[in-house]
Amino acid sequence: MHKGRLEAFSDGVLAIIITIMVLELKVPHGGSAFNDLEPLLPVFLSYVLSFVYLGIYWNNHHHMFQVTQRVNGSILWANLHLLFWLSLVPFATGWMGETHFAPAPTALYGAVLLMSAVAYMILQQAILRAPGGSTVLASAIGRDLKGKLSPLIYVAAIGLSFVNPWIACALYVLVALLWLIPDRRIERALASGMNDV
Amino acid sequence: MHKGRLEAFSDGVLAIIITIMVLELKVPHGGSAFNDLEPLLPVFLSYVLSFVYLGIYWNNHHHMFQVTQRVNGSILWANLHLLFWLSLVPFATGWMGETHFAPAPTALYGAVLLMSAVAYMILQQAILRAPGGSTVLASAIGRDLKGKLSPLIYVAAIGLSFVNPWIACALYVLVALLWLIPDRRIERALASGMNDV
Amino acid sequence: MHKGRLEAFSDGVLAIIITIMVLELKVPHGGSAFNDLEPLLPVFLSYVLSFVYLGIYWNNHHHMFQVTQRVNGSILWANLHLLFWLSLVPFATGWMGETHFAPAPTALYGAVLLMSAVAYMILQQAILRAPGGSTVLASAIGRDLKGKLSPLIYVAAIGLSFVNPWIACALYVLVALLWLIPDRRIERALASGMNDV
Amino acid sequence: MHKGRLEAFSDGVLAIIITIMVLELKVPHGGSAFNDLEPLLPVFLSYVLSFVYLGIYWNNHHHMFQVTQRVNGSILWANLHLLFWLSLVPFATGWMGETHFAPAPTALYGAVLLMSAVAYMILQQAILRAPGGSTVLASAIGRDLKGKLSPLIYVAAIGLSFVNPWIACALYVLVALLWLIPDRRIERALASGMNDV
Repeated sequence: MHKGRLEAFSDGVLAIIITIMVLELKVPHGGSAFNDLEPLLPVFLSYVLSFVYLGIYWNNHHHMFQVTQRVNGSILWANLHLLFWLSLVPFATGWMGETHFAPAPTALYGAVLLMSAVAYMILQQAILRAPGGSTVLASAIGRDLKGKLSPLIYVAAIGLSFVNPWIACALYVLVALLWLIPDRRIERALASGMNDV
Repeated sequence: MHKGRLEAFSDGVLAIIITIMVLELKVPHGGSAFNDLEPLLPVFLSYVLSFVYLGIYWNNHHHMFQVTQRVNGSILWANLHLLFWLSLVPFATGWMGETHFAPAPTALYGAVLLMSAVAYMILQQAILRAPGGSTVLASAIGRDLKGKLSPLIYVAAIGLSFVNPWIACALYVLVALLWLIPDRRIERALASGMNDV
Repeated sequence: MHKGRLEAFSDGVLAIIITIMVLELKVPHGGSAFNDLEPLLPVFLSYVLSFVYLGIYWNNHHHMFQVTQRVNGSILWANLHLLFWLSLVPFATGWMGETHFAPAPTALYGAVLLMSAVAYMILQQAILRAPGGSTVLASAIGRDLKGKLSPLIYVAAIGLSFVNPWIACALYVLVALLWLIPDRRIERALASGMNDV
Repeated sequence: MHKGRLEAFSDGVLAIIITIMVLELKVPHGGSAFNDLEPLLPVFLSYVLSFVYLGIYWNNHHHMFQVTQRVNGSILWANLHLLFWLSLVPFATGWMGETHFAPAPTALYGAVLLMSAVAYMILQQAILRAPGGSTVLASAIGRDLKGKLSPLIYVAAIGLSFVNPWIACALYVLVALLWLIPDRRIERALASGMNDV
């Protein structure tokens, strides 16, 4: 099976998720001064954070399938499973923003990020285990320090949400920064002469 | 005619349908505790069920067009007919979830699934009947037990919704499980040496 | 310039337009009986009509670009102009449905269809006038009876909306039926040995 | 890395942004006369303006990547940065329309356009600086008068919003007209025999 439609469908779903989040930024009815935007500030900040996260997922998804040749049933479903958790990001983002980063919504946001990270790892494994699994991907991932560290930080952040939600938010920002550098490991591995792509 | 744009358009519509369903999960205004999510639980559960169903349709659509070479007018319209019924899934899902699985909404949900299944069979027939229709598809479908059984179960579930909606839901879950296995028949047929794809 | 991205972008916009219309079908809050769906019936009927119209536009767009090789700036903007008018279909559909086919909304619906038809003709001309314009398209269109008749019927329907909106609706259905047959003229022209595609 | 998915993802996001703007055109509940559309007129006008702007961005994006061969991490993120600012256009459009072009919303609209223009220039630079950066693009851009002038006009318009919002709107229309001519510079450069594309 070819990977084209899986990529197209994922691009479509990610494009929609990233865009409908902005619908939570509701036009302030009856107000036309800059002050009327003030209550929207936390919603806006949580939108920025989630936009960056979805951008990271799209980037890494793009890189991973760059070095994947064929897809099978397991990969298709592992990919849908990832899209499911990412589809909950707008809800978690909206709740966290509207409640001005209250403890429970901030923890829920972390839980959605955690499940997305787990789903991403499952997808990565499905690709590696597929017949003729990608050796470029395997060498690019290596020990996968970032992939293993992120879930641990999310778990810590979920717990700390109930102590002080701002610590949790700082941790979410930290993980985003860790990943903001696109997966240069794959670019390196590709450049180092492995030309089976 | 090439199948590329039909696939791209279908991917777009399915991606949007699967994603706008999540808009029914409305952020609980004014509540910031986990308890405030409780009334959303049935909406969430029906979202999960419909996400799986749409994933199944996307998967099977993907497999079916994998072994289809060219499309004609009948196939284009049979495909739009399928997309029409699937586009009603978010409405039926939202109503069933909001009414906590009341009889009529649960029956309507089954009716939308039934019409989608019928539309899928019509599309399958249109592909088989097209000039140079897919022999790989024909051999892959075989007697098409799953395809014939599902509508019967939906009909039973629609009737049983008025006895006990939970029985109907159990049947919807059962059909989803039947199909969750992607159409390995086509993968098998493809692998068994028919290389006209 | 290649036509690939123009097709992809148009597919995206059309897929979204066709799908957000269904958002006008609002889940009846607090009602869980089939009776509660009754007020939605006109909204549903107008949705079906518009779905068919957008399906027709997508089909004809698909056929027209099938025989178009390259695009230039005029074609890009003529295409965006068409998408603009089609993007107003959900609004016109929603208003017509909610007001149970009142005169003004029914006339507005016809006006949006009229402008879309005009925009389609402009796009068709832009393709024919482009350097190396499609000879297959020219021969396929021929005298373009359907293309010239439809706007006249829309104009009549707009006027008749204020006499009896149901006559207007009957005319909209009539035009849809005229076009429901996909543009077999192009299929015929293609099949008759012109292989510059 | 290939540019295909970057183009597909951008097309998806732009298609959704351009289409969800129309959701701000809310069906007038309980009104069925043309008069009931009057309050929607400013919303409609701001929709037209933003549709044209997004069309311009899509057109120029299309042209720019036409002459770009490969993408790297910087280009991916510069592109996401552009999409972020463009994703705020529907919000700014809706606020400006609903407040009937009040000073603050009109200034905010200009600010979103300004940031989008800056993001576009950053993306352009990222492409030029990439290894094997496009020489066709470089020669096509030349001194980039339009690209340098637009931000200055936006800045002036933002200031003038507080004097008279209509002057600001006139300036936004002016810039749109400047760009409405698709980037013929690239078409010319391509036509002048540089065939490395």
